[in-house]
Amino acid sequence: MFISELKKRLGTDKVTQNETELYRHSKDESPHPPVEPDVVCFPENTEDVVTIVEIADQFGVNVTPYGAGSGLEGQAIPINKGISIDFERMNKVLDFSPEDLTVTVQPGITRMQLNDLINKHGLQFPIDPGADASVGGMVANNASGTTAVKYGSMRDQLLNLEIVLANGKVIRTGTRAKKSSSGYNLTGLFTGSEGTLGIVTEITLRLHGIPEHIIAARCTFDEIETCAAAATMILQSGIPVLRMELVDAQSIATVNAYGDYDIPVAHSLFFEFAGTKGGTEEEAATAEELMRELGCNGWETAGTSKERAQLWKARHEMSYAYSHTEGVVVAGGDVCVPISKLPEMVHLARELTDASGLKSGVFGHVGDGNFHTIIAFDPNNPEERARAEQANEALARRAIEVGGSCTGEHGVGLGKRQLQQAEHGEALEIMKQMKQMLDPKNLFNPGKIFP
Amino acid sequence: MFISELKKRLGTDKVTQNETELYRHSKDESPHPPVEPDVVCFPENTEDVVTIVEIADQFGVNVTPYGAGSGLEGQAIPINKGISIDFERMNKVLDFSPEDLTVTVQPGITRMQLNDLINKHGLQFPIDPGADASVGGMVANNASGTTAVKYGSMRDQLLNLEIVLANGKVIRTGTRAKKSSSGYNLTGLFTGSEGTLGIVTEITLRLHGIPEHIIAARCTFDEIETCAAAATMILQSGIPVLRMELVDAQSIATVNAYGDYDIPVAHSLFFEFAGTKGGTEEEAATAEELMRELGCNGWETAGTSKERAQLWKARHEMSYAYSHTEGVVVAGGDVCVPISKLPEMVHLARELTDASGLKSGVFGHVGDGNFHTIIAFDPNNPEERARAEQANEALARRAIEVGGSCTGEHGVGLGKRQLQQAEHGEALEIMKQMKQMLDPKNLFNPGKIFP
Ligand SMILES: Cc1cc2nc3c(=O)[nH]c(=O)nc-3n(C[C@H](O)[C@H](O)[C@H](O)COP(=O)(O)OP(=O)(O)OC[C@H]3O[C@@H](n4cnc5c(N)ncnc54)[C@H](O)[C@@H]3O)c2cc1C
Ligand SMILES: Cc1cc2nc3c(=O)[nH]c(=O)nc-3n(C[C@H](O)[C@H](O)[C@H](O)COP(=O)(O)OP(=O)(O)OC[C@H]3O[C@@H](n4cnc5c(N)ncnc54)[C@H](O)[C@@H]3O)c2cc1C
Repeated sequence: MFISELKKRLGTDKVTQNETELYRHSKDESPHPPVEPDVVCFPENTEDVVTIVEIADQFGVNVTPYGAGSGLEGQAIPINKGISIDFERMNKVLDFSPEDLTVTVQPGITRMQLNDLINKHGLQFPIDPGADASVGGMVANNASGTTAVKYGSMRDQLLNLEIVLANGKVIRTGTRAKKSSSGYNLTGLFTGSEGTLGIVTEITLRLHGIPEHIIAARCTFDEIETCAAAATMILQSGIPVLRMELVDAQSIATVNAYGDYDIPVAHSLFFEFAGTKGGTEEEAATAEELMRELGCNGWETAGTSKERAQLWKARHEMSYAYSHTEGVVVAGGDVCVPISKLPEMVHLARELTDASGLKSGVFGHVGDGNFHTIIAFDPNNPEERARAEQANEALARRAIEVGGSCTGEHGVGLGKRQLQQAEHGEALEIMKQMKQMLDPKNLFNPGKIFP
Repeated sequence: MFISELKKRLGTDKVTQNETELYRHSKDESPHPPVEPDVVCFPENTEDVVTIVEIADQFGVNVTPYGAGSGLEGQAIPINKGISIDFERMNKVLDFSPEDLTVTVQPGITRMQLNDLINKHGLQFPIDPGADASVGGMVANNASGTTAVKYGSMRDQLLNLEIVLANGKVIRTGTRAKKSSSGYNLTGLFTGSEGTLGIVTEITLRLHGIPEHIIAARCTFDEIETCAAAATMILQSGIPVLRMELVDAQSIATVNAYGDYDIPVAHSLFFEFAGTKGGTEEEAATAEELMRELGCNGWETAGTSKERAQLWKARHEMSYAYSHTEGVVVAGGDVCVPISKLPEMVHLARELTDASGLKSGVFGHVGDGNFHTIIAFDPNNPEERARAEQANEALARRAIEVGGSCTGEHGVGLGKRQLQQAEHGEALEIMKQMKQMLDPKNLFNPGKIFP
C-alpha cells in the first residue's frame, strides 16, 4: 500500500512509523485532541514532496504538513490520519542576498535559526511568534507577533513562494522584486491557507536592517481599559513604535511565578522604539509625555539590551507560564479589532474570562488591535473546557460584530471553523470553491478552516 | 436589447450613448488603440452595479470598469465593446474613522479628493501614482508611486473590499481590523486583478499620519549607474527614506522645457526623509555623508514646503512632459528588479532606449527597484512604434531573467500580456483557472492580463 510505496520511492530513512514520531505528529500546542498520522515523512527537497503528493493522490491518502508543531488551533493535527510531512530536514538557506535584503529558505528552518545566520550581517527577520516556529508554518498561518505593528505580518514579508500543488505540479508565486503588478497575487492567497491549498517548499523573504538604537519602556495603569485607550492614543498620535504590548496584572503575576521574574504586578503597556538615537529618544519622550497626561503610574525605561531581552523573554513565556502546570492546558483567544474598539474589547475580555471562573489572562499586540485571552483548564473536565471555549467564542463573535476578525494571527485550524461563516459571509463560498479548484480530492490538510 | 434594459432598470440618466462619452471611454493614457464601448453606465451605488452585471450576464455582454482613465497599459479599453462602467458618481466617503486610521470609500473617489478631505485631520492616503487616479483604479492595478518605499503598494493599504462578482453576488473580502489570519486572503487576490475577477464597489483603506517633519534633498552623479548604485547603498544602510527617485539627465531637460523649471540637468537622485525633526536631520546627514563618499556632485536640500512641492510637481509631470507634444505618444516600461540589479538594469535601459533612436527617458522609484522608461513616438508611424515597443520588451524580458517583474506598478492590461508566461510559468495556468472559476462566461474586462 501507500506506505511501502513511500518507502520504495523516497527511501526508508525518510519514512517512519515509529510510535514516538507518530505521537509527536499527532498534536500541536493547542488543546485539540491528538490524532496520529499513519506515517511521517521527512522530505529533503522539493522532489521528495512531489513524490509524496503523487503517492497521496494515487492512493487517495491525506497529507498534512507539519512545521514546528507550535500552532495554537490544531492546524497540524492529521484528523483524517494519512501522511504527516515533517520539514525538519528541509531547513537550508538556499540563497542569501544581503545586498537585496532578501533570503530564500526551505520551509523547515525556524525563525531563530534564520536569525542566527543573518543577524551578523546586520539584518533580521523580525516576525516573532512566541514559539520558535518554522518559517513554513509561519507562512501557512500568516503568523505575526510583537513587531507586526512596525513590520506587518508574515504575508508582508513574502516575495515568492514555491508551492507543490495537489496535482503534483510545482509553481512559483512571485519574483525577487519588492513589488509587482503582474498577474494575480497568488503569494498572498497561499499565505495563511494552512496547508489546505498547497505545500510550501521554498520561501523568499524580505529582510530588515537591525535598528541602530532601541529604547524599551514600560508603564502601568489601574484599569485595563485605560491601558488599551492609552495604546490607541499612541497610534493616533503617529509615534512609530517597534513594539507595543498590553499585559494584564493577572498575566504578570503568572509569569513572575513561572520565570522567577520581578515585574511589578499591574495592568501594563510595554513599548519599544527603534531607529536613530535621536529619533527614538524623541519618540520615547513624546510617548512618556502622552502616557503621563493619561495618568499612568510611572514610566520606566530598560536601558541595557540585557534588561530588554529579559523583558521580552518574559513576554514570550506568557503562554507557557499558564500551561506548564501538570494536568492543565490552555485555550487561547486571538481577536483583532479596529483600534478604537480596543478599550471596550479588552474590558469585555476580562469580564468574560473572569466569568469563566478559570485562571486566565488578557494580553497582546495592541498596536495592531490584536490581543489574546488565555484560559487554563483541566482537559479531562469537559465542563471546564466548555466554559473556556464559550468565553473565547463569545469574545470572537463580538470582535466580528465590531468590525474585526476572529483571529489576528493564530489562524483557523479546528478552533475557529465555526466562526468562518459569521466573519466571511458569502465570501466563504468563494473560499470553498478555491479549495475545490486547487485540491479537488481534498487531499491537503482536510477538515481545517472550513466548517 | 441590453441597452434598453439598462435604461429601464437603472434609469436613463445613468446610461449614455453620447458620442463624446463613448470616445472618452475608448482609451486611457496608454498608446493602445482606442475601442469604443456600446454604452457607458454611471452607477450610483452597489445595487446599480449588481443590476448592470445581471443584465450583462443575461445578454452575454462584456463589462469593463473605468476609473479615471489614467492607466498606462490599456486596462480600461473595452476591446470587445459592451458596457463601460464609469465610477465618477460613486465617489463618496462612506465611513471615516480617524481614531482607527481607516476610511471606507466608493471606488470613484480620486486620491487627491480623498486627501483633501482627510489631510485636515492630520491623516493622509500616501499612495501617489503621478496621475489623480481613482482609488478603485488604483486597487485594480495595485498601483503605487514615489512613497511605496515607505508605505508599500496599494495592496498594503487595503483592509477590506466589497466586490460584485460575475454571478451578481456581493462579497466582502476583509474586516476593519489591521490584520487577520482568518480564511483565504481574497483582498490581495482581487487587488491587481484589473477588473477581470470582480468589480470593486467599496474600499476600506488604512490611513497614515502626516509626518511631523520632512526634508527633501537632491544630488547628482555623472553616470546613471552610479546613481542607481548610490540608491542601493542607501537601502542597504537602512536609512528609512520616504521617497527616493532616480531621474536621468534627459528627463530633467525635458521636464525643465515643459514646465519652465530650472532643475540642474544631470542624472539625479531625489530624496525625502520624514519623521521627527531630530530623526530626519540625522537621516539626511547620514545619507549626505554616504552620497559624498560615493562621489556625488553636491548635495542640496529643499528647505521650504513650497520648494518641495515644486520638486514633486516636476517629478509627477515627467510623463506629460514627454507626451504633451502634438502628434506624439509615449510607451512606458515599468520593470521592478532586485535592488542589487538596479545599476546594470538602468544602464541597460539607457542603452536600449538610446538604441531606439527615439526621444526617451529613464526614471523611477528606485527605492523599490522599480523604474520606468518612456519612449516618445509618432503613433501613425508603425516602425517607430515597433522600435519603442521592442526596447521596452527587451528590458522587461531581462528584468524577468534577473529575478524581477515585468511590471512594478502599471499592471498588465494589453501591453504586458505577452510577458506573463515568461514571468509566471506554470502559475499562469492557476491564474487562468481562477478567472474561469470566478467569471466562467468571461464577462469582465476580456482580453486583459492573459495572452
Ligand atoms: C508560546 C507560543 C506563543 C505564540 N505566539 C504567537 C504569536 O505571537 N503570533 C503568532 O502568529 N503565532 C503565535 N503562536 C502560534 C505559532 O507559533 C504560529 O502559528 C506558527 O506560525 C506555527 O508554526 P509551526 O512551524 O509551529 O507550524 P505547525 O504548528 O507545525 O503547523 C501550522 C500549520 O502550518 C502548516 N504548515 C507547516 N509547514 C507547512 C508547509 N511547508 N507548507 C504548507 N503548510 C505548512 C501545517 O499544516 C499547519 O496547518 C504561538 C505559539 C506558542 C506555543
Ligand atoms: C502621468 C502618469 C503618471 C503615472 N504614474 C504612476 C505611478 O507612479 N504609479 C502607478 O502605479 N501608476 C502610475 N500611473 C498609472 C495610473 O495612474 C494607475 O495605473 C492608476 O491605478 C489607474 O487608475 P485609474 O482610476 O485611472 O484607472 P483606469 O485607467 O480607469 O482603469 C485601470 C484599470 O482599473 C479597472 N478599474 C477601475 N475601476 C475599477 C473598479 N471599481 N473595479 C474593478 N476594476 C476597476 C479598469 O477596468 C482597468 O482595468 C501613471 C499614469 C499617468 C498618466
